[in-house]
Amino acid sequence: MIIVCKASANEEKLNKLIAHLNSLGLETHVSIGVMSTVIGLIGDTSKVDIESLEAWDITEKVKRVSEPFKLANRKFHNEPTVIDINGVKIGDKYFSVMAGPCSVESEEQIIACAKSIKAAGGNILRGGAFKPRTSPYAFRGLKEKGLDLLLTAKKETGLPVVSELMSLEHLDLFSDIDIIQIGARNMQNFELLSELGKCGKPILLKRGLANTIEEWLMSAEYIMASGNPNVILCERGIRTFETTTRNTLDISAVPVLRGLTHLPVIIDPSHATGKATLIHPLAKAGVAVGADGLMIEVHPTPEQALCDGAQSITPQKFAEIMSDVKTLCHIEGRIL
Amino acid sequence: MIIVCKASANEEKLNKLIAHLNSLGLETHVSIGVMSTVIGLIGDTSKVDIESLEAWDITEKVKRVSEPFKLANRKFHNEPTVIDINGVKIGDKYFSVMAGPCSVESEEQIIACAKSIKAAGGNILRGGAFKPRTSPYAFRGLKEKGLDLLLTAKKETGLPVVSELMSLEHLDLFSDIDIIQIGARNMQNFELLSELGKCGKPILLKRGLANTIEEWLMSAEYIMASGNPNVILCERGIRTFETTTRNTLDISAVPVLRGLTHLPVIIDPSHATGKATLIHPLAKAGVAVGADGLMIEVHPTPEQALCDGAQSITPQKFAEIMSDVKTLCHIEGRIL
Amino acid sequence: MIIVCKASANEEKLNKLIAHLNSLGLETHVSIGVMSTVIGLIGDTSKVDIESLEAWDITEKVKRVSEPFKLANRKFHNEPTVIDINGVKIGDKYFSVMAGPCSVESEEQIIACAKSIKAAGGNILRGGAFKPRTSPYAFRGLKEKGLDLLLTAKKETGLPVVSELMSLEHLDLFSDIDIIQIGARNMQNFELLSELGKCGKPILLKRGLANTIEEWLMSAEYIMASGNPNVILCERGIRTFETTTRNTLDISAVPVLRGLTHLPVIIDPSHATGKATLIHPLAKAGVAVGADGLMIEVHPTPEQALCDGAQSITPQKFAEIMSDVKTLCHIEGRIL
Amino acid sequence: MIIVCKASANEEKLNKLIAHLNSLGLETHVSIGVMSTVIGLIGDTSKVDIESLEAWDITEKVKRVSEPFKLANRKFHNEPTVIDINGVKIGDKYFSVMAGPCSVESEEQIIACAKSIKAAGGNILRGGAFKPRTSPYAFRGLKEKGLDLLLTAKKETGLPVVSELMSLEHLDLFSDIDIIQIGARNMQNFELLSELGKCGKPILLKRGLANTIEEWLMSAEYIMASGNPNVILCERGIRTFETTTRNTLDISAVPVLRGLTHLPVIIDPSHATGKATLIHPLAKAGVAVGADGLMIEVHPTPEQALCDGAQSITPQKFAEIMSDVKTLCHIEGRIL
Repeated sequence: MIIVCKASANEEKLNKLIAHLNSLGLETHVSIGVMSTVIGLIGDTSKVDIESLEAWDITEKVKRVSEPFKLANRKFHNEPTVIDINGVKIGDKYFSVMAGPCSVESEEQIIACAKSIKAAGGNILRGGAFKPRTSPYAFRGLKEKGLDLLLTAKKETGLPVVSELMSLEHLDLFSDIDIIQIGARNMQNFELLSELGKCGKPILLKRGLANTIEEWLMSAEYIMASGNPNVILCERGIRTFETTTRNTLDISAVPVLRGLTHLPVIIDPSHATGKATLIHPLAKAGVAVGADGLMIEVHPTPEQALCDGAQSITPQKFAEIMSDVKTLCHIEGRIL
Repeated sequence: MIIVCKASANEEKLNKLIAHLNSLGLETHVSIGVMSTVIGLIGDTSKVDIESLEAWDITEKVKRVSEPFKLANRKFHNEPTVIDINGVKIGDKYFSVMAGPCSVESEEQIIACAKSIKAAGGNILRGGAFKPRTSPYAFRGLKEKGLDLLLTAKKETGLPVVSELMSLEHLDLFSDIDIIQIGARNMQNFELLSELGKCGKPILLKRGLANTIEEWLMSAEYIMASGNPNVILCERGIRTFETTTRNTLDISAVPVLRGLTHLPVIIDPSHATGKATLIHPLAKAGVAVGADGLMIEVHPTPEQALCDGAQSITPQKFAEIMSDVKTLCHIEGRIL
Repeated sequence: MIIVCKASANEEKLNKLIAHLNSLGLETHVSIGVMSTVIGLIGDTSKVDIESLEAWDITEKVKRVSEPFKLANRKFHNEPTVIDINGVKIGDKYFSVMAGPCSVESEEQIIACAKSIKAAGGNILRGGAFKPRTSPYAFRGLKEKGLDLLLTAKKETGLPVVSELMSLEHLDLFSDIDIIQIGARNMQNFELLSELGKCGKPILLKRGLANTIEEWLMSAEYIMASGNPNVILCERGIRTFETTTRNTLDISAVPVLRGLTHLPVIIDPSHATGKATLIHPLAKAGVAVGADGLMIEVHPTPEQALCDGAQSITPQKFAEIMSDVKTLCHIEGRIL
Repeated sequence: MIIVCKASANEEKLNKLIAHLNSLGLETHVSIGVMSTVIGLIGDTSKVDIESLEAWDITEKVKRVSEPFKLANRKFHNEPTVIDINGVKIGDKYFSVMAGPCSVESEEQIIACAKSIKAAGGNILRGGAFKPRTSPYAFRGLKEKGLDLLLTAKKETGLPVVSELMSLEHLDLFSDIDIIQIGARNMQNFELLSELGKCGKPILLKRGLANTIEEWLMSAEYIMASGNPNVILCERGIRTFETTTRNTLDISAVPVLRGLTHLPVIIDPSHATGKATLIHPLAKAGVAVGADGLMIEVHPTPEQALCDGAQSITPQKFAEIMSDVKTLCHIEGRIL
């Protein structure tokens, strides 16, 4: 971390600030320039509050030099993390495809979906029971009953299941769910993240609509700092000015994260674009860019879906996509 | 709502879609053009799922014509809402200034702060007890003890108090808090919003970092639809590419909201900019643009603040700002 | 196009507006609803000024239903455009790789670069002579001499060349340059676009930093409307809040454009990210997503580059990338 | 400027980089930490190319500590610049209101407009002759004839005039125009900026749609570095995800710029919002936040305007706004 001081900083004020920094256990290196004086901080700055240093009247700005995350940081843990979900692995060589309906709607729907996904080569079943909806008047999921139906489909097909948790009050209901999904809107629900750190279950952490990669890793750090190392990151599009797609898939996030963290990273082209016709090309791009998996919305009859119909694809289309995904995984040396 | 159909839509398919729309209780008007056919929907479309209509293969796009919010909509409730907080009013003619430290740190701090705020003319005391922090290693507030100290300051000064609620589990602790604040990161925590609709307390709903004005009003609608009409909207900056300020204050949101809703709207220049030196001019702009109030972070010694020091101003600076705010309120015909 | 009128619109005012619309040669369909009246416009609305319709006091909002671009529109020209550059084709089955230094610096540099690019399988040479630089104090290119050196490299290797034009004053200097590149900052330099429509040369039109896909197609339309159908679109990243990459590559733009236009679309991973380490995975993603080509910055010694060193890759790295690009093109059925 | 080196940087490589930096005339301070080594650069870094330093394989990142602009920098020129336009002053104590139609359409229109603006207290007349339009099919201004009519209105009323220049080819036509406006889309048209530095005329430099404040100041620096110190900055809204307004007015830019530069800053609420109903509150906010002036679109009959009708206000409305602007200027101690 470095502190750029104003030209007006006199020796007395500088010494006071330096004494304060030393009292925080930090070593300081001072470079006096013509227009400004720069103080370099050496030591563990991950707990230093940038804001309070900026409040000193001689401070012009404060810049971090090292990343504020540690447990998620590749510098301290170079080996890629592989997460094992009932035998299905994600990370390093292992590629995984999570698919299923936006929302579990009926036993018939979820079981038909699960079977077709398995047949096409998908290896994890997704299905929403608690649905975050912008409008209070929209369908908000079958809740507990939705989870039950998802578990029925798990029993029927053997596929591990992933579903979104929206509130700690429902945590008990998720005991047999294999992966707990935290949605974009809860990526910085810090109370929720801390508690999830206490259960050992794999957490699928979606990126927030307007969150930087660093903030996303800090949210993973929250879960890890509470004791749970099993975090899967999911890029699902960020909010930009472009309106032809629901969000803008930040595909560069995959190789950027590869450099910064050892955690697995998957891509969700369904939420990223909101359009069924874009899923196929983006799924292929996801494999080619080096992601560790995909999450895709599949629905037997998209035009009857109770939510997100526009971005859902049919099982037939899913099988077609899987054929290309397998070809690309083979080339990339990934095991699916 | 209108549905633009593809040129390829034949009569049979169009009739099937129209029959479906009629089954939802909607009347349809069809205009057949050269390149596309447009179906206009008449009736209550607030519960129609755009996504599922977009999933029909003959649909090119679906556009809303009327707003999806009703209880918050000025069209159905033209009179501005005035919220009374223990005698302090916000909305219509009434202007309110909420001020205090980012975080309650000690009895001495919060009481000194409260007294200076009252003396300067602020009429509501803010103070955080549960703090959402990006880093799990940062100070996260005094929690229950923080609320107790805030209530002590309330007793001492008579100022109503506002504090942020981060999780429903803590709701019981807020029984004597006058206004419950919902932070930007929880603006779309729909489970939380629904529950808050069940308590009658005024809710200060901050705008999410990347949320549109329409989404913000839909979140207000969540609270109102559950039975609580006392919602105060707070613009606190949105996320853009500009980095000299922490966020970008969307000041136009104030007059835009004035046209769309009857709810009061306040501005938080502290979080919008993250910089103490910008609070004064933006507070003045907030009054001039027609906001119903301000929320400002004040700390006796910003450089020792446990959070957000960089954007906190001293009580002396606050008094100076209040002097200008009062002059402008007088000109605007607002009662402070 | 539809016009949503305010509830307050009375019959007299509506009739006046309708008469105005009819005078513009448009047919109108009126749907009277409870909260608002909607006027649907039928006919050629591409020349209708939305702004002036919004200025009528009974208008609440105006929404386009059909695209404002025509010559670039796939609806009117379904066959993909293939552009032939001295025998090198781009579009439909043909994939093209344009590579070379950000800036032409010396004869030795550009010829060495050109040879290694050709050897690796690149088929168009890029090289900047006029460089748009944020700072007036930065190196701004060798200008006329740079173009000369680029043409020397063209003669030496037979590779067609592409270079950026920044001002009409320099147009004469580009007579032997095969493709004229219009940079992101000039995407809406309408005077320039109109003039380029008068030369028959292929134009590589980069997307502006904050331009929507529709605006981008309107800029292509400017060139086409002046008589030049040879436009190649180049996605090079848009500006968002994310700072780990210089820009955010909007990879979804490729399949979105495929649906909207018949023009070829390429991807520039160098400018999109600003980081050499990200080029390889993004180049692969570009092929997989269905782009018609790539533009990549290659420099013999990036750390000595006079501009954009951070995003330049070595010829060795380029050869490695080309090996993967060829494999993927083969799978995709593209001819490189 | 500081360079953060990778942990893998050995002494030999560090020494090579340091030798290179010294060869650029920079002094270096090296701090060796556990995870990374930081090199601080002392001396004039305004001409150092960050990109080429980032291309060194031992470099992790490079951060600027001082601003890259000099002539526009308040640190080197603390007194606010006052620009005198034929007796009308802008900057420091002087407030200016520029108003007029988006586009000059006829002699009758521009003279009527000019007279009503003068009567209401506006002191500079704006009027577009060359109009940048997204669509090639839209009205693009009366061009030379538009400038002539604007000059007729100048003669008639004595008001100085401002008009937009889109291309250097038209520069000669602007000899009697008092202020040359550079539009948002040309903010980084560097060839144009350099040339404008050679004429002594005041330049009104609008902020680009997606440009940072630093980039904006660098564009001012281009003009100043070529010899023209008369630059007026105009904030006109930036592009964000919000769609209720055409752009998002970044009002914080005014006090931010006040800290960074001595140049005058004005606000254009018309382009910022695109909506006539928002001009009044934003104009007031502009004065209160400390801007040096306003630019407002006024048209006798907005619904007949050939461009930007939706954001144009009538002369009556303008007079009403001016009344409030004068009151606020009086309070702020500004001379209008």
